[in-house]
Amino acid sequence: MKPIWTIVLLLLIVASVTANNGNTRLDTAAQRRASNIHRMDTIILLTYVSVMVLIVVTAWAFKHYRFRFIHESGVTLFYGLLIGFVIRYFGLGLLQSQTFDVVTKNRTIVKEPPDYLMLEVKPEGGSRVSFHYELIEGFFADKRKKIEQQIEQKSVFSPEVFFNMLIPPIIFNAGYSLKKRHFFRNIGSILAIVFIGTTISCFGTGCLMFVFTSIFQMGYTFKELLFFGALISATDPVTIISVFNDMNVEADLFALIFGESALNDAVAIVLSEVIENFSTSSEAITLQDFGSAIAGFAGVFFGSLMLGFVIGCMNAFLTKMTLISEHPLLESSLFVLISYISFLVAEVCGLTGIVSVLFCGIAQAHYTYNNLSNESQSNTKHFFHMISFIMESFIFCYIGVSVFVTNNQRWSFSFLLFSLISITASRALFVYPLSWMLNIRRRPKIPKRYQHMILFAGLRGAMAFALAGRNTSTENRQTIFATTTAVVIVTVLVNGGLTSWMIDYLQIKHGKDAIEEGQRLESSMSCSNGDHHADLDETVPVTMAPGLNPWDKAFLPRKWYHFDASFMKPLLTHATPSLEQTLPPFCLPLTSLLTSSRQRAVRN
Amino acid sequence: MKPIWTIVLLLLIVASVTANNGNTRLDTAAQRRASNIHRMDTIILLTYVSVMVLIVVTAWAFKHYRFRFIHESGVTLFYGLLIGFVIRYFGLGLLQSQTFDVVTKNRTIVKEPPDYLMLEVKPEGGSRVSFHYELIEGFFADKRKKIEQQIEQKSVFSPEVFFNMLIPPIIFNAGYSLKKRHFFRNIGSILAIVFIGTTISCFGTGCLMFVFTSIFQMGYTFKELLFFGALISATDPVTIISVFNDMNVEADLFALIFGESALNDAVAIVLSEVIENFSTSSEAITLQDFGSAIAGFAGVFFGSLMLGFVIGCMNAFLTKMTLISEHPLLESSLFVLISYISFLVAEVCGLTGIVSVLFCGIAQAHYTYNNLSNESQSNTKHFFHMISFIMESFIFCYIGVSVFVTNNQRWSFSFLLFSLISITASRALFVYPLSWMLNIRRRPKIPKRYQHMILFAGLRGAMAFALAGRNTSTENRQTIFATTTAVVIVTVLVNGGLTSWMIDYLQIKHGKDAIEEGQRLESSMSCSNGDHHADLDETVPVTMAPGLNPWDKAFLPRKWYHFDASFMKPLLTHATPSLEQTLPPFCLPLTSLLTSSRQRAVRN
Repeated sequence: MKPIWTIVLLLLIVASVTANNGNTRLDTAAQRRASNIHRMDTIILLTYVSVMVLIVVTAWAFKHYRFRFIHESGVTLFYGLLIGFVIRYFGLGLLQSQTFDVVTKNRTIVKEPPDYLMLEVKPEGGSRVSFHYELIEGFFADKRKKIEQQIEQKSVFSPEVFFNMLIPPIIFNAGYSLKKRHFFRNIGSILAIVFIGTTISCFGTGCLMFVFTSIFQMGYTFKELLFFGALISATDPVTIISVFNDMNVEADLFALIFGESALNDAVAIVLSEVIENFSTSSEAITLQDFGSAIAGFAGVFFGSLMLGFVIGCMNAFLTKMTLISEHPLLESSLFVLISYISFLVAEVCGLTGIVSVLFCGIAQAHYTYNNLSNESQSNTKHFFHMISFIMESFIFCYIGVSVFVTNNQRWSFSFLLFSLISITASRALFVYPLSWMLNIRRRPKIPKRYQHMILFAGLRGAMAFALAGRNTSTENRQTIFATTTAVVIVTVLVNGGLTSWMIDYLQIKHGKDAIEEGQRLESSMSCSNGDHHADLDETVPVTMAPGLNPWDKAFLPRKWYHFDASFMKPLLTHATPSLEQTLPPFCLPLTSLLTSSRQRAVRN
Repeated sequence: MKPIWTIVLLLLIVASVTANNGNTRLDTAAQRRASNIHRMDTIILLTYVSVMVLIVVTAWAFKHYRFRFIHESGVTLFYGLLIGFVIRYFGLGLLQSQTFDVVTKNRTIVKEPPDYLMLEVKPEGGSRVSFHYELIEGFFADKRKKIEQQIEQKSVFSPEVFFNMLIPPIIFNAGYSLKKRHFFRNIGSILAIVFIGTTISCFGTGCLMFVFTSIFQMGYTFKELLFFGALISATDPVTIISVFNDMNVEADLFALIFGESALNDAVAIVLSEVIENFSTSSEAITLQDFGSAIAGFAGVFFGSLMLGFVIGCMNAFLTKMTLISEHPLLESSLFVLISYISFLVAEVCGLTGIVSVLFCGIAQAHYTYNNLSNESQSNTKHFFHMISFIMESFIFCYIGVSVFVTNNQRWSFSFLLFSLISITASRALFVYPLSWMLNIRRRPKIPKRYQHMILFAGLRGAMAFALAGRNTSTENRQTIFATTTAVVIVTVLVNGGLTSWMIDYLQIKHGKDAIEEGQRLESSMSCSNGDHHADLDETVPVTMAPGLNPWDKAFLPRKWYHFDASFMKPLLTHATPSLEQTLPPFCLPLTSLLTSSRQRAVRN
């Protein structure tokens, strides 16, 4: 019983700047119009790049004049809103479209080939579904195609570009520039917040929103709201971290908030994918769904984690065993390409590229970095730093523009209001109980002022926006997308702007105080193995005495430290002692193969 | 009298991996298929990136084992050919397409929305023109659209991506990393070769090809062949320069060949655009066409040159007057963005972005570079070096792939044979006479062995390929595209591979000999002003005595040196003497405004 539909074809013709003198031949007209469109493309590109220059200059001025009550991301958003407004209301007629119905008139006048075709399919008894087509030249290497339904969408970037091009370098940079020392000391608490906290936040938001929307009969399914809860749980590291950096906030608080915001993107993306893949036939969620969701979640998350880590280690091994560090250009290029591969392989395997690229970044920083030539060390650090800065600026700018330019956002202020309440409540719901639980065993404890700050630091950013924009096929999803955009704007402007004030208000140490405090703490600890996570620790011997440092007491971290120092580092880097020294003698044939001449040189 | 066409609509459906179980609803089927296509996209991207990793490793191995008779570009091309072959003949069924005629059957079964629509328009009495449409989500920010006619094209990258994304960083890097000293000493000869030589090569190739094709009645118009002559005159710096660099070839020969290949891209692009814009109604070229072509050529070339230079200077001024160098990240980002803007502005103004970005690069290296913080100096250099390396590798790889994958190439071996003869002959036609004329006044003369080497170094690369691929609407143009691809492959493999042998054969000094020779020459000259073009010459005083150095005798360079040292450098960089010292005293209010505190600090 195959469905049969009537097909209606509409032509959308974007009014182009060319004069329609009618007599020109079709091919020359097409040629002329194509070059006009090329110019329009470059104008749009130029607009974006110019705004970004403006953003850089503003960012500099803000830093220079220590102007702190609005942050760069806020300014970037603001510029974006401005540009969006201008394009929308003074848009130079670039976006006006005409519609011709081709099929109803059997012979239609087409002076130039239309830029866009719209195919409307009407299933019998169903409502219309329409698909947009764009005039292309080729369709092999970089096509973007997603389905959209009933959207009169006029603008905008494909979310695929976000996920394949813009987000990976940002996340990789987060992993690569991680301050490993404090991060790994707080890893337990961070992972608890990331896994348990994000899940609580996701389900808390979903449930609260379900209560609100049910009361006001707004017609959302629980699945949709859970999806919203998942994507809105991805907090953004950009704004808050740059404020913290500027102010030299206490290192442990920094590690907690950075760790949460860097890692929970991954959790949010996996959660939202799992929720998306719930059986679509039934609207309710069964217990079986839930079980398979948990399993799928764990599989995807740890699969991606391992994949990224392994690819990072492979690169470390490659850079160790070859002498590619003699050619820093090739070395840096290899580094960049392999890091991107960790993303692509994960996506191809159906895993999560973001998680993979994050842990690839951590592995690269931990192992590969030590093998690189000095030049490549500085190159790769700065390269990713700059790329990620430019991408972030672009994304914030684009979020601003999208408010005015996209047509796949449906605004609902009551939904926005409920969202703001729900996300704050569900964030409080995990911050305080989790901190209390963690404080039972944790030394030093997480003080109350940290907890307030973690609650306050729940800014949303690029990842939430990109996740929400990925699928806007129904009206509800369009409302979710618009609301997410608004939440990003509100939190970045309000929370981001008030962060420095909040730090003072909560009496969190910053500036010189925090640095001194940190040094006092450092020296009061026996640091013989804390150093294992410093950047270049090739010469540190393995004579660790775990347990002296309260942060390193746990069993698993201790095991991992040992394994890392006696096997992973000697295998993957030029660090000494080499495998010849750490492994039992009967492995000698193998270990001598895996020991580099640099390792031997140090030993002798 | 408006033309009326019948419109036939064809649906091209790419066979996707999904099972057609018929009963699924359209939207879920679409969702599922979209995610499959996303995976296909990532597979293709992964293939490219993996090949590039392979290329980097191979390049390293070649460098390491001093394997010289095939060059990296050659290997890259070879890998590309291999991948293309695999995709073509073992293409995993990814590219099979089905065609349904929608209009003839009034009711057609469509189980899933098709990825591609083809609109065929048949003017009355004319032949069919068909346009391809791709299913999209949005069409604002990064659309690519060009017209293609009667092409069953299955693959490939838009040439727009080449021109907007891949080529600019390569050209900018050429300008930015220019060895200014030897370049400017040979500037007269370089410009002669670039302007007169490229024009001779263009018209020579065009005329020769016209003779050949007329004899064998192959049906090409003179305009088409002239266009071919223009685009094939763009020689490629990549391969030859990297061989020269490896071998430390004599600096003057290096400067001549690098200068030619870096600058003649710009001339070729302007020439080909001018030829493209000849009135299309008449096939012959009138004298008036020719005159307006010369005028247009000069206007576009020098307009673009000035624009790029001015934008570069603006950035220098900005970095000088603000203290942005305190924040290297912002500084580097600004640098990258403004450099890209020089390309975009030129394109928007209807000028040539390539020329603009090249001279922006030169201006940035000459002025801005001196204002940057140490960190940004190294960052920007390495950033552009790496980006341009990756882009180049990608392009060479892609040229290889395109041989098998694109359907807009029509192979004609006789045309290829004639092309190879014509381009060699027309290159000889300008190298020897021009060198003879230049040698009348030039000291040191261009020796015969240099002339042979310049002839031999006429490799073709990315620019010729991209220019040829820009318009493949007619069969003749498709032949031109295929021939250009073949010429690139032949010259890169043969000439590139034999370069090091040729250097030995022509007894051109290289390695230590060349370095010693260079130093001997240097020291035999009075170098008080040769230093003006060294990289960081802030502290060199203006006490020049032009005329002592035979390279600096000419009137115009002397004037420019003086203007540069007494006005441009003090205005745009922190170099001393400052404007307060070089300009007459009555300008004081203005000059004191334009003098930085660093300049004052040096003076006092």
